[in-house]
Amino acid sequence: MQLGVIGLGRMGGNMVKRLRADGHEVIGFDLSPQSGRDVDSLEALVSALTAPRVVWIMVPAGAPTDATVDQLAELLEEGDLVIDGGNTRYTDDQRHEQQLSAKGIHFMDVGVSGGVWGAERGYALMAGGSLADYERALPIFESLKPEGEDGLVLAGSVGGGHFAKMVHNGIEYGMMQAFGEGFETMMRSDLIENPAAVMTSWRQGSVVQSWLLDLFARAAQDDPDLHNMPPVANESGEAKWMIEAALELGVPTPATASALWARQTSRGAGEDTLRVVSSLRAQFGGHVTK
Amino acid sequence: MQLGVIGLGRMGGNMVKRLRADGHEVIGFDLSPQSGRDVDSLEALVSALTAPRVVWIMVPAGAPTDATVDQLAELLEEGDLVIDGGNTRYTDDQRHEQQLSAKGIHFMDVGVSGGVWGAERGYALMAGGSLADYERALPIFESLKPEGEDGLVLAGSVGGGHFAKMVHNGIEYGMMQAFGEGFETMMRSDLIENPAAVMTSWRQGSVVQSWLLDLFARAAQDDPDLHNMPPVANESGEAKWMIEAALELGVPTPATASALWARQTSRGAGEDTLRVVSSLRAQFGGHVTK
Amino acid sequence: MQLGVIGLGRMGGNMVKRLRADGHEVIGFDLSPQSGRDVDSLEALVSALTAPRVVWIMVPAGAPTDATVDQLAELLEEGDLVIDGGNTRYTDDQRHEQQLSAKGIHFMDVGVSGGVWGAERGYALMAGGSLADYERALPIFESLKPEGEDGLVLAGSVGGGHFAKMVHNGIEYGMMQAFGEGFETMMRSDLIENPAAVMTSWRQGSVVQSWLLDLFARAAQDDPDLHNMPPVANESGEAKWMIEAALELGVPTPATASALWARQTSRGAGEDTLRVVSSLRAQFGGHVTK
Amino acid sequence: MQLGVIGLGRMGGNMVKRLRADGHEVIGFDLSPQSGRDVDSLEALVSALTAPRVVWIMVPAGAPTDATVDQLAELLEEGDLVIDGGNTRYTDDQRHEQQLSAKGIHFMDVGVSGGVWGAERGYALMAGGSLADYERALPIFESLKPEGEDGLVLAGSVGGGHFAKMVHNGIEYGMMQAFGEGFETMMRSDLIENPAAVMTSWRQGSVVQSWLLDLFARAAQDDPDLHNMPPVANESGEAKWMIEAALELGVPTPATASALWARQTSRGAGEDTLRVVSSLRAQFGGHVTK
Repeated sequence: MQLGVIGLGRMGGNMVKRLRADGHEVIGFDLSPQSGRDVDSLEALVSALTAPRVVWIMVPAGAPTDATVDQLAELLEEGDLVIDGGNTRYTDDQRHEQQLSAKGIHFMDVGVSGGVWGAERGYALMAGGSLADYERALPIFESLKPEGEDGLVLAGSVGGGHFAKMVHNGIEYGMMQAFGEGFETMMRSDLIENPAAVMTSWRQGSVVQSWLLDLFARAAQDDPDLHNMPPVANESGEAKWMIEAALELGVPTPATASALWARQTSRGAGEDTLRVVSSLRAQFGGHVTK
Repeated sequence: MQLGVIGLGRMGGNMVKRLRADGHEVIGFDLSPQSGRDVDSLEALVSALTAPRVVWIMVPAGAPTDATVDQLAELLEEGDLVIDGGNTRYTDDQRHEQQLSAKGIHFMDVGVSGGVWGAERGYALMAGGSLADYERALPIFESLKPEGEDGLVLAGSVGGGHFAKMVHNGIEYGMMQAFGEGFETMMRSDLIENPAAVMTSWRQGSVVQSWLLDLFARAAQDDPDLHNMPPVANESGEAKWMIEAALELGVPTPATASALWARQTSRGAGEDTLRVVSSLRAQFGGHVTK
Repeated sequence: MQLGVIGLGRMGGNMVKRLRADGHEVIGFDLSPQSGRDVDSLEALVSALTAPRVVWIMVPAGAPTDATVDQLAELLEEGDLVIDGGNTRYTDDQRHEQQLSAKGIHFMDVGVSGGVWGAERGYALMAGGSLADYERALPIFESLKPEGEDGLVLAGSVGGGHFAKMVHNGIEYGMMQAFGEGFETMMRSDLIENPAAVMTSWRQGSVVQSWLLDLFARAAQDDPDLHNMPPVANESGEAKWMIEAALELGVPTPATASALWARQTSRGAGEDTLRVVSSLRAQFGGHVTK
Repeated sequence: MQLGVIGLGRMGGNMVKRLRADGHEVIGFDLSPQSGRDVDSLEALVSALTAPRVVWIMVPAGAPTDATVDQLAELLEEGDLVIDGGNTRYTDDQRHEQQLSAKGIHFMDVGVSGGVWGAERGYALMAGGSLADYERALPIFESLKPEGEDGLVLAGSVGGGHFAKMVHNGIEYGMMQAFGEGFETMMRSDLIENPAAVMTSWRQGSVVQSWLLDLFARAAQDDPDLHNMPPVANESGEAKWMIEAALELGVPTPATASALWARQTSRGAGEDTLRVVSSLRAQFGGHVTK
């Protein structure tokens, strides 16, 4: 089917390739002239599409997505469908939907997982919106998702797609932290000769078999002690949002939160906490660490 | 090759089947006459094996394994090899080795993962001991492990096999907790219609693809809200040992520990902590929860 | 000085007594006729006060405080000062200030700690607002605070008072959890005869001397095992807000959060997490806990 | 009464002063000739004391204390009493008691809290042993403890004194972490002008009043941002022991453990965990933090 894609970065660009390979007519727009865009403005994109249009937004979350929705609310017409496939916070989806539905424009949010591997493996898609809109966009979803019966779900109403993706990322944080804690425990033990070899062996027959473990095996192949990797990790925001959502909903998330905090601490958070501890120890007679 | 197996319970019994199917000559012993044992005493088992013997212990950790090692230290001869495939704590392995090596008997510890699925999928094996002993027992390992290049590792010296298995189980705890936190967050949200369907969809294309997720999908098929499952979970001991080992080694394990504590709390732990909180709140004017 | 107080519940009523005992002219209003109110409407309260007025709000946070601010914005005049001494979330303070300042009405937020003991001990006060407003209300603060040099602070601009109080309550959660964990560890140990006696002994000479420990000693006097207290605790909301604020600010708060989660878990949170754990264990061969 | 004291370091030396000021006849021994010791060998110490003797050990835990007990078991006689006032792990106390009781020598363990302030404030004492031994040593305890009704307890049988002290230190860790988390949250917020001033104000009227808060106020007086303190803290071992004991006893200790882990992380622990996280993120397309 015909669709417009806004945002031709790494993710967007790969998705367009996958869609075109499956026979869809994609008209791509990006702010950058170097992006290989088909049209050079949103206006041109909208003109190039036949109504009722389908437009897929794949730009950074926050201000860029807000600005795109603002413009689309001006340019599109009743019956058109906007799909936000970026990493928008679920709380923004409802705002975007209201903005668009005031003009009769339909809206869906889709959480997309898969990273750079999605181009080849297919992307896991979690959609939020009405069943009718979902069915309308189904040919697109079918081309983006992996082959097989899984990898695509209508998670719930608008916001549900990004909520599901956010939870997915929170779980991913917890799993990575769990693997990390195990690896470090083995690294410190005299009993284990090659922790990376042990972990790699778990790729078959074990309970912890997983894609993350496969990726670990790849990463450790040439650097089994991971000494080329920095002991520092960024956060993407989604795990934080999940913990905030869980706090609001009254759900304890100690494993997920500990994963987030470990990353924050690796970038300097927690230092003032330790200054307090250190000050108090100095006051009651403990030695200050130099 | 020929080997004796002590302990023909669910795990041991399945392993014997897998070994025999692969052409090994297994002589099985179990305390229970209903076990389908081949001999009715340890003495008979030792007599039935040709020296140098290989004996695989598959009995409960702790006292039963200690008693078995005690007896084997009496019955076996120099050059024989004892393999403990049970869930023994790694700190006990060194004791067992010393006890046996005093008489020239070799010892290996092997952590075995795979549960009831191992019979069919093959077991992930983590061995601790010398390279020579490992190579001697390799035909057994090859038959027990899954097909493919992974699923078997010589993790390190004696104790290393059970240490690796212990860490494996700790990671498993953390992963299960992470999935649980994500599921509960979705269960509480109005935005998600069917949390189990969302999680099942992640089986393809997502970052959290894993065998545990496959098992979740199976479990949720007929009971998507998991209301037939109790909100209570036991612990097997190994995650606790891992956290203790990590404490000794100075490795923070917040995700693993939170998983253990959630299980302990589900069985009544933490209650006195809350009585203190509740008492203090009553004292400074908060209301006591009835 | 003259002031109006809105809300004559347990906290508000005690504060009025303390203010009157110190010579202030307090005109009290409450929705309930049984409250011992001086006037029976907000209109009457405003009429009874001489401009420029000072009005102290001491009603439940959220809708009741919002409604009170709405009405005061209508009734008060330029130069009047509204002080919110309730448990309002700091994020609402800025909204209230904007609402009032649009009409030239000044606003301060004051976090008040002290519970039922404040009537006698004095209340710890944390104020947010301008220095000029702080100095204007200082006679009130001086009468409410404990004798001595501490117990009162201008924490920062509007919102800062409730932010400080929120952090105070978060710390309180962590401290209570720490005492609870220690108590429970002693309760489970054969080595300690009377955990409550041990804790009570720490009231002098120890590093953990604190008012909370004094309250514990009181609570434990007639019930050393605390068996009359339920193993369940509510949350007041402020610790949750603190953790949310810390998440936004990138500050790890594992001790504070674990205290919140312990309380949530005591009231049924975390159950679906355990159903997942329990389901997975059942699938790979562990026994389901009955 | 007469007693020997072994170990005249900062703690031991201060305690001897306090005992002598109260009229006790103290004979002090230390390995160092610069310590101001009264005798230059354990043999001389034992000779100088009148049987039945009381000997107080105040040397570092572990090997030094073990060696001292070994020697005292040789030198002392039936009916003598050894008191270990150091930071010995409670699990070692029972071993020491058995060693000494084989020769009829009595044993007590006493946890001592108070740091450098104890000389002036008095020390909080937690004793483990028999009631008869406790009463025998009571004059010593009375002189060391603070004035007032608290500060001394017979916590339980042998080991109970150090167990109680260990739990005390665990609670202290949790409290310090809680204060630290609160301080850092305020440091990061624009709403709070001077976090140290806020915390200092809590010394009166608040729920978090405590000796640790008093010490914080002292520390922050000349360095309100604590920038002269390193964001690094050591651990003394006792919190780790408490968490291990709690693990064995099945008691969740998330607040205490998070405090320990924060300190460990400040000294480089957790780095391999983050290397795993960082490797996995690089593999699935996240950017590696430089």
